[in-house]
Amino acid sequence: MTKVPRTLKITLAYDGADFFGWQVQSERATIQGELMDALARVTGERSLPQGSGRTDAGVHALAQVASWETSSPIPAANLATALNDKLPLAIRVLAVEDAPTGFHARKSARAKTYEYRIFRGDLCPPFRARYCYHHPWPLDESALATAADVVMGEHDFTSFAAIDPERHARIESSAEPLDNVRTIFSSAWAHAGDELVYRVRGSGFLHHMVRNLVGTLLLVGKGTLTRADLQRILAARDRSAAGPTAPAQGLFLVSVEY
Amino acid sequence: MTKVPRTLKITLAYDGADFFGWQVQSERATIQGELMDALARVTGERSLPQGSGRTDAGVHALAQVASWETSSPIPAANLATALNDKLPLAIRVLAVEDAPTGFHARKSARAKTYEYRIFRGDLCPPFRARYCYHHPWPLDESALATAADVVMGEHDFTSFAAIDPERHARIESSAEPLDNVRTIFSSAWAHAGDELVYRVRGSGFLHHMVRNLVGTLLLVGKGTLTRADLQRILAARDRSAAGPTAPAQGLFLVSVEY
Repeated sequence: MTKVPRTLKITLAYDGADFFGWQVQSERATIQGELMDALARVTGERSLPQGSGRTDAGVHALAQVASWETSSPIPAANLATALNDKLPLAIRVLAVEDAPTGFHARKSARAKTYEYRIFRGDLCPPFRARYCYHHPWPLDESALATAADVVMGEHDFTSFAAIDPERHARIESSAEPLDNVRTIFSSAWAHAGDELVYRVRGSGFLHHMVRNLVGTLLLVGKGTLTRADLQRILAARDRSAAGPTAPAQGLFLVSVEY
Repeated sequence: MTKVPRTLKITLAYDGADFFGWQVQSERATIQGELMDALARVTGERSLPQGSGRTDAGVHALAQVASWETSSPIPAANLATALNDKLPLAIRVLAVEDAPTGFHARKSARAKTYEYRIFRGDLCPPFRARYCYHHPWPLDESALATAADVVMGEHDFTSFAAIDPERHARIESSAEPLDNVRTIFSSAWAHAGDELVYRVRGSGFLHHMVRNLVGTLLLVGKGTLTRADLQRILAARDRSAAGPTAPAQGLFLVSVEY
């Protein structure tokens, strides 16, 4: 049988609590590593699937997307079932599809949506502790709501980017823009049961950007900062001007658009 | 200040997935061990809290009850807050109350309720995999419903008790009845969203009894056994007559009545 090269689009959900993030590491369980192992066991081909972006240790995904080039003739629908047989229960393949030639999960992405979930009750049920940030203290929700608008549109988000000395070298070898300019299409807070959820959709996100935005927005909610302070912090293009990084376990990659 | 002995009733919820069950073990994280450590750190007194019963590794509790004798003068409400500061997020103290003299979490218990949660969808979301048994295959729900009645009332449940050579010696040193006779007050299946839930309330439960009941009821749901077979299995008083032990992660101790 002639082997025909194809590109697969793999959509997956994961509970990130017990993994050292997306990116493959030797000796440590990562999402990318587990997916590569499962693909190798199912198809006999061992190569790295490319994610739409890295998620940090403890960060979850409702629908992360990976692309993978293969010569395997196994139909896409069968691959989904076979991969789920091999993967840990904390990682589930939601769909496998044949993608157009040239499809690349990161380079082809046009928009991403993240959610940050904050549990507001006094006592966080143990069954939810892995999936939210427990913040029972007072927050001015109208201040939060108006502050969320500040990041809308195209901005240089250096103030909210992790300081990462290796980033420059890493990015030069990829298609990711070298600068820190990104466009935010929507940014808003909403109630979902006993959680307060920040949902943000943008062209792309810098490392730690959503968690740094949430950490800084929470300072507005507490009255430590004002909306005008947030505008100044954004304009400063200086990470030290912004607030702390919100904990990983509240963050979910919701979807990636192509 | 005179130290006055008191007995505390401690109600707690836990995610059992990452613990080696309730009972304290050296070198292994257990619920009882974590609670003892937290009590020692808060009050300076180190002694074992007594649980209403043991839960196995991976089994959860919505409201387990422990009793603890102490001379600490710390008010009960303050203890709850202080314990939650020390305990891992997977264990939460829901309430601490002063109990009548002689109260003992196991010996004073009059009834217990357990739930067994079965996820019925094709794909179990990774955020729920720790908290249910994923069983997407066909089940005859009307057969399940009528079979659940079989265990109602007072019976010798030897057929559903774990074969445990150490049990006899262990029980002789406690107030637990030596025989395997227990009374079931209610036993029924219900739908809860995309889960099928077995809820059982009884005077007490033998080791593995709920999981063995569920494992056997599922054989009725699959058509392997009939309601009449279940009656014969119960009458046989022989563990080898019954079905397999359902997985731990679906089981929740819901409440203990006094």
